[in-house]
Amino acid sequence: MNQIHRVAIVGGNHGNELTGVYLIKKFQQYPHLIHRSSFETLSLLGNPKAIAARTRYIDTDLNRCFNESQLSDVKTSSYEELRAREIQKILQPQNQQSVDVIMDLHTTTANMGLCIILGNWHPLLLKLAADLSAVNPLIKVYIHEQPKGSGFLRSLCNLGFSIEIGAVPQGVLNAELFQQTEKLIYSILDYLENYNQGRNLQENHTLTVYKLIGFVDYPRNEVGEIQAMIHPQLHLKDYQPLHPGDPIFLNFTGEEIFYQGNSTVYPIFINEAAYYEKGIAMHISQKELIQIC
Amino acid sequence: MNQIHRVAIVGGNHGNELTGVYLIKKFQQYPHLIHRSSFETLSLLGNPKAIAARTRYIDTDLNRCFNESQLSDVKTSSYEELRAREIQKILQPQNQQSVDVIMDLHTTTANMGLCIILGNWHPLLLKLAADLSAVNPLIKVYIHEQPKGSGFLRSLCNLGFSIEIGAVPQGVLNAELFQQTEKLIYSILDYLENYNQGRNLQENHTLTVYKLIGFVDYPRNEVGEIQAMIHPQLHLKDYQPLHPGDPIFLNFTGEEIFYQGNSTVYPIFINEAAYYEKGIAMHISQKELIQIC
Repeated sequence: MNQIHRVAIVGGNHGNELTGVYLIKKFQQYPHLIHRSSFETLSLLGNPKAIAARTRYIDTDLNRCFNESQLSDVKTSSYEELRAREIQKILQPQNQQSVDVIMDLHTTTANMGLCIILGNWHPLLLKLAADLSAVNPLIKVYIHEQPKGSGFLRSLCNLGFSIEIGAVPQGVLNAELFQQTEKLIYSILDYLENYNQGRNLQENHTLTVYKLIGFVDYPRNEVGEIQAMIHPQLHLKDYQPLHPGDPIFLNFTGEEIFYQGNSTVYPIFINEAAYYEKGIAMHISQKELIQIC
Repeated sequence: MNQIHRVAIVGGNHGNELTGVYLIKKFQQYPHLIHRSSFETLSLLGNPKAIAARTRYIDTDLNRCFNESQLSDVKTSSYEELRAREIQKILQPQNQQSVDVIMDLHTTTANMGLCIILGNWHPLLLKLAADLSAVNPLIKVYIHEQPKGSGFLRSLCNLGFSIEIGAVPQGVLNAELFQQTEKLIYSILDYLENYNQGRNLQENHTLTVYKLIGFVDYPRNEVGEIQAMIHPQLHLKDYQPLHPGDPIFLNFTGEEIFYQGNSTVYPIFINEAAYYEKGIAMHISQKELIQIC
């Protein structure tokens, strides 16, 4: 069993997602809260300039800058590309121990509750997710596969994952979700501590996951402007089944648009504010019950 | 009775409040929707650069730039100050008829439903508000007194008001609220048409208003950082009574902070994202039942 030596918690990777920002500020003020005896815990604000500007990013989305080409290109000049390289140097310093775990804190305007987003199927992450979601059924597990260095911060290491909390508007703190997120972080740190100490008390051998299978964009006109809104029946219905023929959008003149897929799927990230510009109205997932060894 | 000749509907005064933006785009595509026989209706996007950037503003809040000194200062250089002067020239052209009515469309992350914000006590606005709120009890009326030229777009004319819709995150469309806002706009245009034609069918002679009496800021530290969040019991409770001693904030270590006022008040704009930087956690209002002649 490989021991975990260093854990990083990052908040404010997106500057207008305040839950992570204020949790990191709290952890930096009270470091004992995230201290565990068997590993070192770093806490880090991802995008200080965007946090100060109360915006997602300054030049480009920081959480798409952690790919091999951008990280190795010394000629990069956007603020976020430079910041991505700084963060990589902090988390993976040359000639020193890299972090083993990255926990990246996000919020979404979608109704995703407390979601753990895994970029790979690492057995330890699945066990962690299975145990946490068994204790707290509000926790959902979303598998959005990303190869190492695909651009997301969490892809920097095998044990990287995001915590995605919603629904929270950009630029807003929701006290209840703040406290639930904080509790979830402590549960994860405790789990890793138990893991290091061989006291891994896994009791849950099945796990429900939502696995990304595609994206749906808004209907758009020839110049890319959206022509419809999320249908009221789908609004806030993340993780709920969407059947072929179900209403999915409502256009501005009140006409319904129906889901054209061939099978039942489970939309996630429905109506996320930051995804309008990315051409994503929602992620589409499959719901699967998997066995954990 | 003074006739109404020109009515302006403005959306996207704040670029990330999408309901107004897409309603204006709809009205510009289908102008017959806002056409009425007895007056001209203009529709206008307030802040095109901020709309394109999906942000509230570029340099400064456009909806604080409509004051005498900024509008008359030809040396102003911020994008929004220049844009405010452009808008003034459109709405109040020299040697031509100024608009008589300004309807300024906004959204808020606060749970304000369908709110009409009046900057003054003009009898026609009160009658309009009384009749509309009698027909649709979801409509609330908020009096936020502002002298002419105080900085808000609606203060440019006596019959200026805002429509404030929420809760909607910044950068997000909510189909149901979009349709309710659209319907409200048509009701207002119909009301003005009836007024012009002497068919003013006022049946409601009382009106409940929420009248601004002050602001409450978040607790902050010496460098201005917020130290607490809106209390979960107050979250989304706009227009509900807040009594002395009721919990109002929760700080980051979980301690409750209680309302210190001497009398029961009615908070509005609770947890509006854009007001964190303005030093406003909520507006405080008095609830009053007024008589309309």
